[in-house]
Amino acid sequence: MINEKLPKIWYGGDYNPEQWEPEIWKEDERMFKLAGIDVATVNVFSWELNQPDEHTYDFTQLDETMDRLYKSGVYVCLATSTGAHPAWMARKYPDVLRVDVQGRKRKFGGRHNSCPNSPTYRKYSTLMAGKLAERYKDHPGLLIWHISNEYGGYCYCDNCAAGFREWLKERYGNLDALNKAWNTRFWGHTFYDWEEIVPPSELSEEWGGNRTNFQGISLDYRRFMSHSLLECYRLEYEEIKKHTPNIPVTTNLMGFYPELDYFEWAKYMDIVSWDNYPSLDTPVSFTAMTHDLMRGLKSGDPFMLMEQTPSQQNWQAYNSLKRPGVMRLWSYQAVARGADTVLFFQLRRSIGACEKYHGAVIEHVGHEHTRVFREVAELGRELQQLGDTLLDARTEAKIGIVYDWENRWATELSSGPTIALNYVNEVHKYYDALFQMHVESDMVSVEEDFGKYEIVIAPVMYMVKPGFAKKVEQFVAAGGTFVTTFFSGIVNENDLVTTGGYPGELRSVLGIWAEEIDALFPDQKNQIVMKRSWGSLEGPYECGLLCDLIHSEGAEVLAEYGSDFYKGMPVLTVNKFGKGRAYYVASSPEADFLQGLMKNLCEEKGIKPLLDAPVGVEVARRVKNGLEYLFLLNHNAEASAVEIGASERKDLLANAVVTGSVTVPGRGVVILESKPQS
Amino acid sequence: MINEKLPKIWYGGDYNPEQWEPEIWKEDERMFKLAGIDVATVNVFSWELNQPDEHTYDFTQLDETMDRLYKSGVYVCLATSTGAHPAWMARKYPDVLRVDVQGRKRKFGGRHNSCPNSPTYRKYSTLMAGKLAERYKDHPGLLIWHISNEYGGYCYCDNCAAGFREWLKERYGNLDALNKAWNTRFWGHTFYDWEEIVPPSELSEEWGGNRTNFQGISLDYRRFMSHSLLECYRLEYEEIKKHTPNIPVTTNLMGFYPELDYFEWAKYMDIVSWDNYPSLDTPVSFTAMTHDLMRGLKSGDPFMLMEQTPSQQNWQAYNSLKRPGVMRLWSYQAVARGADTVLFFQLRRSIGACEKYHGAVIEHVGHEHTRVFREVAELGRELQQLGDTLLDARTEAKIGIVYDWENRWATELSSGPTIALNYVNEVHKYYDALFQMHVESDMVSVEEDFGKYEIVIAPVMYMVKPGFAKKVEQFVAAGGTFVTTFFSGIVNENDLVTTGGYPGELRSVLGIWAEEIDALFPDQKNQIVMKRSWGSLEGPYECGLLCDLIHSEGAEVLAEYGSDFYKGMPVLTVNKFGKGRAYYVASSPEADFLQGLMKNLCEEKGIKPLLDAPVGVEVARRVKNGLEYLFLLNHNAEASAVEIGASERKDLLANAVVTGSVTVPGRGVVILESKPQS
Amino acid sequence: MINEKLPKIWYGGDYNPEQWEPEIWKEDERMFKLAGIDVATVNVFSWELNQPDEHTYDFTQLDETMDRLYKSGVYVCLATSTGAHPAWMARKYPDVLRVDVQGRKRKFGGRHNSCPNSPTYRKYSTLMAGKLAERYKDHPGLLIWHISNEYGGYCYCDNCAAGFREWLKERYGNLDALNKAWNTRFWGHTFYDWEEIVPPSELSEEWGGNRTNFQGISLDYRRFMSHSLLECYRLEYEEIKKHTPNIPVTTNLMGFYPELDYFEWAKYMDIVSWDNYPSLDTPVSFTAMTHDLMRGLKSGDPFMLMEQTPSQQNWQAYNSLKRPGVMRLWSYQAVARGADTVLFFQLRRSIGACEKYHGAVIEHVGHEHTRVFREVAELGRELQQLGDTLLDARTEAKIGIVYDWENRWATELSSGPTIALNYVNEVHKYYDALFQMHVESDMVSVEEDFGKYEIVIAPVMYMVKPGFAKKVEQFVAAGGTFVTTFFSGIVNENDLVTTGGYPGELRSVLGIWAEEIDALFPDQKNQIVMKRSWGSLEGPYECGLLCDLIHSEGAEVLAEYGSDFYKGMPVLTVNKFGKGRAYYVASSPEADFLQGLMKNLCEEKGIKPLLDAPVGVEVARRVKNGLEYLFLLNHNAEASAVEIGASERKDLLANAVVTGSVTVPGRGVVILESKPQS
Repeated sequence: MINEKLPKIWYGGDYNPEQWEPEIWKEDERMFKLAGIDVATVNVFSWELNQPDEHTYDFTQLDETMDRLYKSGVYVCLATSTGAHPAWMARKYPDVLRVDVQGRKRKFGGRHNSCPNSPTYRKYSTLMAGKLAERYKDHPGLLIWHISNEYGGYCYCDNCAAGFREWLKERYGNLDALNKAWNTRFWGHTFYDWEEIVPPSELSEEWGGNRTNFQGISLDYRRFMSHSLLECYRLEYEEIKKHTPNIPVTTNLMGFYPELDYFEWAKYMDIVSWDNYPSLDTPVSFTAMTHDLMRGLKSGDPFMLMEQTPSQQNWQAYNSLKRPGVMRLWSYQAVARGADTVLFFQLRRSIGACEKYHGAVIEHVGHEHTRVFREVAELGRELQQLGDTLLDARTEAKIGIVYDWENRWATELSSGPTIALNYVNEVHKYYDALFQMHVESDMVSVEEDFGKYEIVIAPVMYMVKPGFAKKVEQFVAAGGTFVTTFFSGIVNENDLVTTGGYPGELRSVLGIWAEEIDALFPDQKNQIVMKRSWGSLEGPYECGLLCDLIHSEGAEVLAEYGSDFYKGMPVLTVNKFGKGRAYYVASSPEADFLQGLMKNLCEEKGIKPLLDAPVGVEVARRVKNGLEYLFLLNHNAEASAVEIGASERKDLLANAVVTGSVTVPGRGVVILESKPQS
Repeated sequence: MINEKLPKIWYGGDYNPEQWEPEIWKEDERMFKLAGIDVATVNVFSWELNQPDEHTYDFTQLDETMDRLYKSGVYVCLATSTGAHPAWMARKYPDVLRVDVQGRKRKFGGRHNSCPNSPTYRKYSTLMAGKLAERYKDHPGLLIWHISNEYGGYCYCDNCAAGFREWLKERYGNLDALNKAWNTRFWGHTFYDWEEIVPPSELSEEWGGNRTNFQGISLDYRRFMSHSLLECYRLEYEEIKKHTPNIPVTTNLMGFYPELDYFEWAKYMDIVSWDNYPSLDTPVSFTAMTHDLMRGLKSGDPFMLMEQTPSQQNWQAYNSLKRPGVMRLWSYQAVARGADTVLFFQLRRSIGACEKYHGAVIEHVGHEHTRVFREVAELGRELQQLGDTLLDARTEAKIGIVYDWENRWATELSSGPTIALNYVNEVHKYYDALFQMHVESDMVSVEEDFGKYEIVIAPVMYMVKPGFAKKVEQFVAAGGTFVTTFFSGIVNENDLVTTGGYPGELRSVLGIWAEEIDALFPDQKNQIVMKRSWGSLEGPYECGLLCDLIHSEGAEVLAEYGSDFYKGMPVLTVNKFGKGRAYYVASSPEADFLQGLMKNLCEEKGIKPLLDAPVGVEVARRVKNGLEYLFLLNHNAEASAVEIGASERKDLLANAVVTGSVTVPGRGVVILESKPQS
Repeated sequence: MINEKLPKIWYGGDYNPEQWEPEIWKEDERMFKLAGIDVATVNVFSWELNQPDEHTYDFTQLDETMDRLYKSGVYVCLATSTGAHPAWMARKYPDVLRVDVQGRKRKFGGRHNSCPNSPTYRKYSTLMAGKLAERYKDHPGLLIWHISNEYGGYCYCDNCAAGFREWLKERYGNLDALNKAWNTRFWGHTFYDWEEIVPPSELSEEWGGNRTNFQGISLDYRRFMSHSLLECYRLEYEEIKKHTPNIPVTTNLMGFYPELDYFEWAKYMDIVSWDNYPSLDTPVSFTAMTHDLMRGLKSGDPFMLMEQTPSQQNWQAYNSLKRPGVMRLWSYQAVARGADTVLFFQLRRSIGACEKYHGAVIEHVGHEHTRVFREVAELGRELQQLGDTLLDARTEAKIGIVYDWENRWATELSSGPTIALNYVNEVHKYYDALFQMHVESDMVSVEEDFGKYEIVIAPVMYMVKPGFAKKVEQFVAAGGTFVTTFFSGIVNENDLVTTGGYPGELRSVLGIWAEEIDALFPDQKNQIVMKRSWGSLEGPYECGLLCDLIHSEGAEVLAEYGSDFYKGMPVLTVNKFGKGRAYYVASSPEADFLQGLMKNLCEEKGIKPLLDAPVGVEVARRVKNGLEYLFLLNHNAEASAVEIGASERKDLLANAVVTGSVTVPGRGVVILESKPQS
């Protein structure tokens, strides 16, 4: 349980009373009660309020807020307010201001605006965290700490340059090692002095976002920036822990946010929390995959849904309303996949600046007679009814899908073979195939223990870090099924190619050699032609993007290319290795192929779908104390009937016993409690 | 009359003899005569010629030009030459150079290149205006002053930052008021010292053109920049007026140019003038609307067409020739809508730099035997024939369409609900519906006296400034018809939301409450379903972009949405308020709906079309001394017959009396003089 | 012969042993032998290796490489290593770093990164060239010098600004002349002091790549930058020649690279070399045209193919593999069009940084059992078999197509009449028409001697430099056929319009006057309607882009426009002038028209196709010592039969005698030796 003070699914969200007059605060109290809100995240952007100048700290308003909320039954997720530095600080200590990737020194503005290697920022943000912890350590309303806000963004200033050099010294020890890791003989880049190294910005090696001349330098800078921001987080964390060692600490992550290695971050977080902002056209399975990733950051631990909008966003191109029922449906989707909180941004809509058209529990109209508020209040009642039933429940997937931020950086920075490769999309294709079949999977890091899985899928495992190949071999030898794809096993952790033939260190377990990699134009396609029909796979199927030209070195060829000069070369192979099997998918296939492949692999390993549910109905499961909780999430606008089998289950929200066929209303949710079904 | 020295529609344009040798000047004289040209705009870009260094002024060549032109019967529109500073000034006083929105200090180049808060620029531009006024105050050829040229562009330098702070002190008095107006508690932006405020550039709050974190800051900077440039204009204006209090002063505007609040500017202009550069694919009604806006800047006063091209432009992507007749047709379109001058850019084509492929009266070939010159000369003869007949004639529309630059800035700066909202396009939709029906309308400011109108239409009246709602209520209570749309009444003059329910201050007069605002993707549509057929409206009609989800609070529901979860909610309402009616159009409709709606409203108010003319024939009217002048402008390539009724009218250009049916040639023009017809 | 030491088509490419350990070098030797490689380009990017600090030079590794290669039978193309400055130099002497067009001072990174007017760069690059020349002047393996690498990129720093002013003083003598050439009276730009002139960057006159306010300034800056980089080249050249006057010197060019005037550069090169990187979708005739341009740089002299990829590139969007046979086919295409070398980038693939996915003779797998290596080795054997047969063979085209870099700069910088005009594409249209007919043509400069041609084609000859029009008149008067198009004869060498009527100085020879130029939108078309059918031309044909509205002044009208208001005006004319004819094509026609026109012109002049070959089969010819070598290059995937006539020819690659019909395999090549056939 995150904090035993509040043994239920937390319900509430970001709250900014400092933007309002006291008469509004009373109204807030009244409406929080109506909505069943019991948690407020406060103090997110109040640095300048708490510290109006360098030498003055003033927590009068925060004291008032903490006390007022607690008195009215609302606990606090207390932010440290360091997500945006004060204007006076920017003026007095310009080192807090970032230099952007174009080399421009920024001025005061925005948020996420502090240089992570600024001595001033580090000093004062740590001081603030310490003062807050000391002051509120015994406050009865304090549930959890929320450090800064949505860390992100890189800086390229001189302090960062200096910090980069120190970090490099630590990593490489000497310039010889660094020059080798970056292959600096290329284009005569040898560094003879640490001071010659500059951050890879648009003024030196990079352009157009992820384009770079030197992958090694750019990759290390991403590592360094992720590390620098993490250091800022950790400085606050340590300071807080001095005062409140038992109160959990988090910071809100952003799903597949590209700039930070969240697997590394999660090591220093007591609980993962994240902000979920899908668009009207985000695939439901993409959101599900993101929840699973957040759960996977700490190997399956429950997480917090820290932010979602009750209805509308403001920063997308077209900010659709969440249709009736969708906010509830997506809230339960989070819970189904491991969230133990349902929190919103924001409790009351601000009236000025860029987020005033972002949805809120309390809209600009100010009263409770709105569709959005009614939906919020309905969910509030349900969550109270659910109590602690679901808290700490876990999932038990037999399939792990590998995702790795460093691998993503490396594939995105790659010059060639194609600009169309999107690592996250390729991962999602495999995730989606299982999702559509209602088969559970976990999103896991390359460091995860594979022993708990029957199947491990690592799409586009381009970068193979030390020990990974050995781990895969052991997993397969022991009976596991491993799946990987084209453009895998190419480089080591420094983006240096493993010579001797692709897929490098994975070649032995896969039993193939990839001689060439063809990049297809967007309108070019090849085909996957099965050598003989195999389970659900008949074909032919379309494939494209990249086509590895592979040779079997022991692997069985299951399918071949259907056209072009490599027609007849293998496109799908399986290699028996020890007691297990390793599959190689040499191109990027259409969805039908992947569903067939996943079906076959699950059958081989005896992995069954949670249910056989209609299209558009998501099924997920959490288990706890010998009971399983099955979530039926109907993303269709119309009702769907789901066959749940003959044994009786308890419908938690309807508080009824059901069996046989359950009808889930359009955009509706059913949670079924039962003994494990097999 | 602009200046009684030349009692006819002025004819001529920009003239740059300084780019040519004296032998060419003689040829100019000859050809001006052939073309009927009687006005030349000179000295537009001759600062560096008049002032070759800081301490030297030399008007020898300008003296010569003024005298020469006057002797040959050509009057002068005398520019002050401050539209581009000299190179020596940029080198000696870099404060004249702007810093752009990306934070880059510019170097010498281009035009419109001076920082409006540069002490050097202000000093020397004012000095120049004074010297010119003193020197030419008694010159018989001087008709009008033309200050600088096409003011525009923003600067973000330190002088502007300092000026901004002073302007803010003036506007807000103290930082508390400013912090409140900008809602700076959001993202912890509270300012404790004026010096902490920096201009909102890409280095601080803005990006991508109109994207900003803080609408309040960005809105005020637009106000301040418009004000700063206006101050430069006014400094010259005051200096000129000291010497020539009775000679009119103007500067050339640019229609819907986004950066300057021309309603504010027009207060300081003796007469409005503007530069009209439609493209081949600009709708004819858009040009008409722009003329009407320029006329509306000074509440219906005639204006000057200061620039148009005789044929081709150079700065568009594809610079089509104006088809035969089109230059004449568009010239009369300007006159029909209030212009008392027809001026060209330019009289002789330059041979070097970026405007050498811009059309001119005298082309590079240099002689009069060109299609373009023949058309120019033909029009010259006609304008001489028209004499002073049309001068000072006015229009008498019964419908006002509200347009407001601050509202435009605010809607364009808005983060959410949609990036697809284009305020000017929404205004044009309503204008176009009336235009297609040949019903006159005026483009008016929010400060206009609504008392003279039967109908006032204010599309997307997002920002409601102090007093505006009250004015609307009085107008409707007294019997007027008011029309507004979705996304209206949302914010005050500081872009702070009016809480308590949209459309805020307009809610009472409209009798509705807008609970939510849905943003549609470009391919999403909803429908307008009439509750019963009403006049010309039967439907259903398509709508999209934004859909307000409204509730009637007394208003009658005329139409409902046809689909989505808000099917059946009102999309068109009318509220009886006092003696009048207030309509609310809750989404952005297709053209057919708006034509039907406008037809119904005109019928309710007894407003009649000027004529019933075929598609493609524009009809406009000016009135003077108890006579009306009806313009039939045939934008079709083929001739069109127009029924003008039984009473006799005088065809001014044909010098004939006509009745019944008049045939207007393809791209032809007929001007009919008569007593008022109804 | 480039160098008699190696009397055959050189075979090899870029080689970077410094990126590898010595054990790999042995393997390189073995594989070079297998592949028939006899030339390696070394030391391209080893400046930092040769000169690890300002005062130390160390050629140990280069010595070793030169000796090792020579011992194993591989000659060296020795680069001077100045294509990328060392990191230490950038740190110690920041003047070597460029300022980009956005005004940003760059930091260390990339390549082609040195300011061409940096005193440091000039000093140390020259010193390096001298040291290398002195050291290796007698090395038996040294075949040729390769200065720097792919010169390109502009700089806008203060050293360049100062250099620009000096260059301008040289060019114009005084400011009056400069002001006149740039037409600075426009927008008041008169310069009174040389110091007032700044480079035309995005901070002054330019934006968006090729957009500029002042064509004259921007044009001169391109000249100056091309000249500055050439000066760097020449400084090294002179230094080398002091030591090795008889060893040829080159630098690798890049075909139609826009930034440098290669005709000017070629004057200072002993032999032209270039890097050929077509994409999968580059038209075969475009590559052919580029080879012909490279051959034309030195009036038909054989050139070097310095770089091509054995298979894949890395820097394109989609890096397709070269299909089987294509590498060989394209290699022979180069030879067919004048190349005496076939060199690759690169011999061994690097494992780190941005070119690791660029194809190489030795792939990452490291052994010879790859498709790519087999194809390389097969070609290596063939080239050994061909020996010196083809060396120094020349072409004998009767048609010259004019291409001019300054004309290209001027058309690309032009503001109006259309952004869609692409000079190179218009040239290619004419080239392609001849190419498809298997008629030989040369790509020539405006300075070329036209006397050797029957037909000279100068598409979009916008800029007519002094003497050019006179040369054309002499050529036509003497019996030649001249063809030019719309938008020709407009400006002089300073981009100042020639007044008095387009096409200016070409008006007399063409016998027409172009009164206006209409720019068409991309979806607008006009038609070319023949006045009577003429040879292969019947029509009507489509045309678009620009339409000159021309009048005959003596020329015969062969075709007229088919629509719009200029329907019936001439679109194709021919003027008899002396003994010859001058054609004017007033718009941009579809391909069918151009093939018909070219066929007619060839028939008029008795120019015959080399052969009548099927579509997709390229035919080219080289001649030497009274023999002709006909290349049949089949770009189709399937075999094609080509009729070669009754006389016997020798099939060089098959070593057989053939006659009648020859079958060329799909993507295959046949080289036929014979006595001249007509």
